[in-house]
Amino acid sequence: MNRRDLVVAGALSMGGVVWGQALADKMESAVVVRIAELEIDPTQLERYKVAVKEEMDTSVRMEPGVLAIYCVAIKENPASLRFLEIYANEEAYRQHLDSPHFRKYVVTTRAMIKARKLIETVPVQLSAKAD
Amino acid sequence: MNRRDLVVAGALSMGGVVWGQALADKMESAVVVRIAELEIDPTQLERYKVAVKEEMDTSVRMEPGVLAIYCVAIKENPASLRFLEIYANEEAYRQHLDSPHFRKYVVTTRAMIKARKLIETVPVQLSAKAD
Repeated sequence: MNRRDLVVAGALSMGGVVWGQALADKMESAVVVRIAELEIDPTQLERYKVAVKEEMDTSVRMEPGVLAIYCVAIKENPASLRFLEIYANEEAYRQHLDSPHFRKYVVTTRAMIKARKLIETVPVQLSAKAD
Repeated sequence: MNRRDLVVAGALSMGGVVWGQALADKMESAVVVRIAELEIDPTQLERYKVAVKEEMDTSVRMEPGVLAIYCVAIKENPASLRFLEIYANEEAYRQHLDSPHFRKYVVTTRAMIKARKLIETVPVQLSAKAD
């Protein structure tokens, strides 16, 4: 039984529970959650979205320590994006910053981003369904 | 085979994938993601956290349409909280607002919250690991 099987079995056996909460319980002090607020050049917004979606997909699929990346646009200002990113620990976050796909994203999107604010956080609670 | 089994089987068969992405693919136009920014009275912060954690736990466990609720504190200002909430659709969001546990949370915490900003969003991409 590999790690995935264990986690899925655990989630099933716990009824309504939730990888997010299970992980938060296990790694309460380790998990790194970062918020990013980005203002994209509206004329390059669609190209930016293509690049960031590829980077997000690759990161969550390839990097064991990238647990989740959510990207949403503010409804009243579609070029204003908000990210919430969950990493297993500081080392996973550093590895992500040093990954080839993240470096490619940085180079590709540099001229598309008008402003960027990175916000360090302390998790209060992370609750998510397993299904 | 119930819905949970189907989703878990699907996730397992897809290798590194990810309920968040699978759900986003299925319900791309339906998913509702809300951001909330709250300023809590620092003298009541610990009591607020107890109340909101209970409300988050109950919501994700009991409500099929509450997919995730994340709450983090800004590192430089621990009484400034950020929420990212993911609902299956508008109806699930409305049901959540009308649930007994959410109503109880509102009453319990009303005097603890100094300011609240609710931000409507349009999901760009939601990527999360299954394990």
